[in-house]
Amino acid sequence: MIIVMNTQATPEELQEVIDWVESQGFKTHVSKGEERAIVGVIGNDRPLDSAQVELMTGVERTMRILEPYKLAGLNVHPEPTLIPLNGLKVGGNQLTLIAGPCSVESREQILETAHAVKEAGATALRGGAFKPRSSPYSFQGMGLAGLELLAEAHQATGLPIVTEVMAPEQVSLVAQYAQVLQIGARNMQNFNLLKAVGQTKHPVLLKRGMMNTLEELLMSAEYILSCGNSSVMLCERGIRTFEKYTRNTFDVNAIPALKARTHLPVIADPSHGTGHWEYVGPVSLAAVAAGADGLIIEVHPKPEEALSDGLQSLKTERFAELIPKLRAVADAVGRKL
Amino acid sequence: MIIVMNTQATPEELQEVIDWVESQGFKTHVSKGEERAIVGVIGNDRPLDSAQVELMTGVERTMRILEPYKLAGLNVHPEPTLIPLNGLKVGGNQLTLIAGPCSVESREQILETAHAVKEAGATALRGGAFKPRSSPYSFQGMGLAGLELLAEAHQATGLPIVTEVMAPEQVSLVAQYAQVLQIGARNMQNFNLLKAVGQTKHPVLLKRGMMNTLEELLMSAEYILSCGNSSVMLCERGIRTFEKYTRNTFDVNAIPALKARTHLPVIADPSHGTGHWEYVGPVSLAAVAAGADGLIIEVHPKPEEALSDGLQSLKTERFAELIPKLRAVADAVGRKL
Amino acid sequence: MIIVMNTQATPEELQEVIDWVESQGFKTHVSKGEERAIVGVIGNDRPLDSAQVELMTGVERTMRILEPYKLAGLNVHPEPTLIPLNGLKVGGNQLTLIAGPCSVESREQILETAHAVKEAGATALRGGAFKPRSSPYSFQGMGLAGLELLAEAHQATGLPIVTEVMAPEQVSLVAQYAQVLQIGARNMQNFNLLKAVGQTKHPVLLKRGMMNTLEELLMSAEYILSCGNSSVMLCERGIRTFEKYTRNTFDVNAIPALKARTHLPVIADPSHGTGHWEYVGPVSLAAVAAGADGLIIEVHPKPEEALSDGLQSLKTERFAELIPKLRAVADAVGRKL
Amino acid sequence: MIIVMNTQATPEELQEVIDWVESQGFKTHVSKGEERAIVGVIGNDRPLDSAQVELMTGVERTMRILEPYKLAGLNVHPEPTLIPLNGLKVGGNQLTLIAGPCSVESREQILETAHAVKEAGATALRGGAFKPRSSPYSFQGMGLAGLELLAEAHQATGLPIVTEVMAPEQVSLVAQYAQVLQIGARNMQNFNLLKAVGQTKHPVLLKRGMMNTLEELLMSAEYILSCGNSSVMLCERGIRTFEKYTRNTFDVNAIPALKARTHLPVIADPSHGTGHWEYVGPVSLAAVAAGADGLIIEVHPKPEEALSDGLQSLKTERFAELIPKLRAVADAVGRKL
Repeated sequence: MIIVMNTQATPEELQEVIDWVESQGFKTHVSKGEERAIVGVIGNDRPLDSAQVELMTGVERTMRILEPYKLAGLNVHPEPTLIPLNGLKVGGNQLTLIAGPCSVESREQILETAHAVKEAGATALRGGAFKPRSSPYSFQGMGLAGLELLAEAHQATGLPIVTEVMAPEQVSLVAQYAQVLQIGARNMQNFNLLKAVGQTKHPVLLKRGMMNTLEELLMSAEYILSCGNSSVMLCERGIRTFEKYTRNTFDVNAIPALKARTHLPVIADPSHGTGHWEYVGPVSLAAVAAGADGLIIEVHPKPEEALSDGLQSLKTERFAELIPKLRAVADAVGRKL
Repeated sequence: MIIVMNTQATPEELQEVIDWVESQGFKTHVSKGEERAIVGVIGNDRPLDSAQVELMTGVERTMRILEPYKLAGLNVHPEPTLIPLNGLKVGGNQLTLIAGPCSVESREQILETAHAVKEAGATALRGGAFKPRSSPYSFQGMGLAGLELLAEAHQATGLPIVTEVMAPEQVSLVAQYAQVLQIGARNMQNFNLLKAVGQTKHPVLLKRGMMNTLEELLMSAEYILSCGNSSVMLCERGIRTFEKYTRNTFDVNAIPALKARTHLPVIADPSHGTGHWEYVGPVSLAAVAAGADGLIIEVHPKPEEALSDGLQSLKTERFAELIPKLRAVADAVGRKL
Repeated sequence: MIIVMNTQATPEELQEVIDWVESQGFKTHVSKGEERAIVGVIGNDRPLDSAQVELMTGVERTMRILEPYKLAGLNVHPEPTLIPLNGLKVGGNQLTLIAGPCSVESREQILETAHAVKEAGATALRGGAFKPRSSPYSFQGMGLAGLELLAEAHQATGLPIVTEVMAPEQVSLVAQYAQVLQIGARNMQNFNLLKAVGQTKHPVLLKRGMMNTLEELLMSAEYILSCGNSSVMLCERGIRTFEKYTRNTFDVNAIPALKARTHLPVIADPSHGTGHWEYVGPVSLAAVAAGADGLIIEVHPKPEEALSDGLQSLKTERFAELIPKLRAVADAVGRKL
Repeated sequence: MIIVMNTQATPEELQEVIDWVESQGFKTHVSKGEERAIVGVIGNDRPLDSAQVELMTGVERTMRILEPYKLAGLNVHPEPTLIPLNGLKVGGNQLTLIAGPCSVESREQILETAHAVKEAGATALRGGAFKPRSSPYSFQGMGLAGLELLAEAHQATGLPIVTEVMAPEQVSLVAQYAQVLQIGARNMQNFNLLKAVGQTKHPVLLKRGMMNTLEELLMSAEYILSCGNSSVMLCERGIRTFEKYTRNTFDVNAIPALKARTHLPVIADPSHGTGHWEYVGPVSLAAVAAGADGLIIEVHPKPEEALSDGLQSLKTERFAELIPKLRAVADAVGRKL
């Protein structure tokens, strides 16, 4: 940390700051400019509280030098994390392809979708049993019955199940039925839930909140990692902006910006990232070109009858048609599908 | 709902839309413009899924006519909701003043603050025992010990306690110690938690998420109301913008915009709304002038030693100095403090 | 400036950075931490280009110590700037009240409004002759004819005229008719226009862009000040956010945050700041309570016939009714109206 | 337009609305729901002012049916606009590649860059002579001398010149030296400037403002088109968000969302879109995969000495290395480079 004194700070105030910092077990290094002094704080095992320093008389502000995450960062873990899933490794050269409906709606719907996406080449099946909906009057998911149908689809196809868990007390239940636990965007900073999934051995698909920074996403991953679960996939699913032609703005920059900082795999969600099925294809291709490790795509046999997110769901045949295009772009950037 | 057909829609496509809407139990009313037809959907007991309609051939888009909330709205409940608290009524003519530290840190700290804010004129004491922190390495709150200290402060001063609850399974515990349950900004769309507090009889202070619209805030209140708990206070605490001189942007417009739509009381949080104690005074006065029903302000005896949010906490004496200014502005707009 | 070396930087790379910085005429001060070295750059007459430094091998990033504005800042000019206008001083204890229609539409409309707002207590008359409209098919203003009507209203009432100038080549024309030149939000970073008004002696009302930070606003003011025109009023008029119940989000924090940094007067525009006339009253009161030096309010005799911004315009009688409320809040915070 | 009456509206109020709308030359079509009436306005040659309607007694709100742009839309012009440039057609199957430094800095710099990007395969040379800078103390561009150097680079390489014009009175000067006129992001709604370039025959590269919607971008294009200049290239260059790891957020969704609405070519600017040269490669590939018609990339022989935007500029050799990767992705999506 760097402490910037203000231009009116007296030598006594400077000394008080130095004494206090040193009393906390750090060394200091003072640099006197023409207008103001700057105090470098040396010794980085644990953070000094910037607010405490900034409230001392004579201090103008502090500046952080180090990143706040550790386990999620490349310093500690320079090699990519590879997460085994259905025989491939998420984060490896081959792309992961998670597909399925927004919500489980019926036995027929989930089984039909599971078979279709498997045939098209999907790695895993997504489908929500517990649904976070902004209105209490919207369909809230099938709950336990939905989990059972997902388990049946897993049995029938062998595809691992990716499904959302919404509360700490649901974790053990969902973990019995699903192979990957999804944390939804609205729960990215539900810290009790992060701790709860951190205590399982299940891989976690952690979605970026719609107005969270990438650093906050990494800090939420850090919660899970620091509980002992090292299998975290980060998911970019679009952020909220003022743009109205799309539901969210897919942040394609996030892919290289995360890859430059973390060893965790990065999955793209072009369905939520755009909100319109017409744009899912182009943005899927873009995500692969930018270096994503995989995609999670909403697919529904009859989107016009979907109980949620129909507008952004691909029909199964359109999903199948997208695969060869994805493969071509993957080849172009040295990846496999 | 209004259904707008596209300019290429055939008469058959129009008829199919009409038939489908009527099959769902609605009446229709068709209006043919020069370029396109428009279908009015009549009968508003329950919503028609806009995505299902928009995916029909020939449909360009749909437009909602009615607000999505009911219990929170003025149509159903035109009179202000008044919530009894410490002898006054939140939402009535007299302003509610909730004050206290961000976190409970020690017996001495919370008791000293409680006595000071009571003497200055506070209605209730705030203080966090469970703290949502973006880093797992930051102070996470004292937990149960913190709740016990809050209960002691309540005993000592008579001030009701406002404290955050972070997970459904914590609700019954926190409800034993606190008079008002706070839902933090990051949990505004933690729907399981909303349902859990909706099943208590405790008043709930519901904070607007930093990325959420006012309509989403009202929908989250609707979750609580629809579970049978009608004592909800809405709290504007600033939204995330690109501005860097302040931690958040306090949305003062939210006060009249909410008052025009809901009967629920609106509380302003200028501490989080600005992030800097120097701006808490001016923004508190602004909130009262704009019609807020109360304030929640972070106060700490020694902000420079606070374990969280020290930068935005007022010293107890500065809080006391603010009260007569608040009273003057309250008088100017016909309210009492 | 502080230069943070990365953890892999070699002593040679460090030395190269030092040599380069010193070759630019600065002194350096090196501080070696446990993980990395930090170079303080001393001598602040002119800025060092951060990008140039950050691209040197071994450099992780740079951090700015000083604010980028000078003339607009309190260091150079600690006393408030007072701008004479119609017998009072903008920025002084008495509040400035600018009122009038969005656009000049007819002789009758502007004269009626001018007399009404004068009688209610306005300091100056606003009205647009050149209108920036997002659509080329919307009313673009009356142009020169509008300026002539404004001049007539000035003659008739004595109220100084505040009107927008949209292009450098319009400045001398508009300056013949108006006492205050307004720079609209969309032109806040039209640097050629800023330079053009900077070369006049007219006071300038500089509106914050809907997407701009306060620092950018101060830098745009700096453009005008650095051309020799020291009479700049800053205007907070709301920023674009994701909120849909209001046209913009009035940033009330901006008032104390600007006051903490600049000597220039701060004027609030609750009409654009909210976009709805129903909210103009509460937000006007809030702005005064927060310390604004004045208000600019859209007033129209018949908003339902206005050619622009009718929704956010107060009727003349509603404007007159607002004045005593504003006066009461002004009194409460020690200001006059 | 649809007019939604409120639930309390009387039959007389409804009739007044109908009468007024018809007095403006429109037909009406009334639809009475269970709670409220809705008035369809028929006849779309010119827009009805929504604010005027919304201020009538009994009206709750209005909803627009038609898009506000015409010439930019696919209804009027369903085929892609192709703009000839250096022997290829911007908007056609072959991708356009515009490259060069942020600013012209010296004869050597611009000539070296021009030769290098030509050799690598660029279609056109970019370079700023007039630079919009947020600080008056930053390098403002070489002005006329810069234009002369660009003309020399054009002579030497045959590459057409793309350069920014900042004010209406500069247009004729810049048009003498440049083949394509660039409107910068900060000037996207400088309507006088849009009209000025609309009166030339030069192709215009119109950059999206950093906080503007796509609809506003189309409306700004409409200004140029409506002045008679039909050669407009839209440029997505990133929008401002709260994300801090990148300078802007490149909106990849904009590419398919614009293609679905307009016939104008869409060019991607990954340099401003990310702000970091390390991310320019991945985001360039993404833009091509998503369907962009071309790229504009900042390239500099020595970014560490650039007077502006060095951090986001590719070295000439890195630019050359990117070309085969771009070509591979272009091939994968059926385009050529």
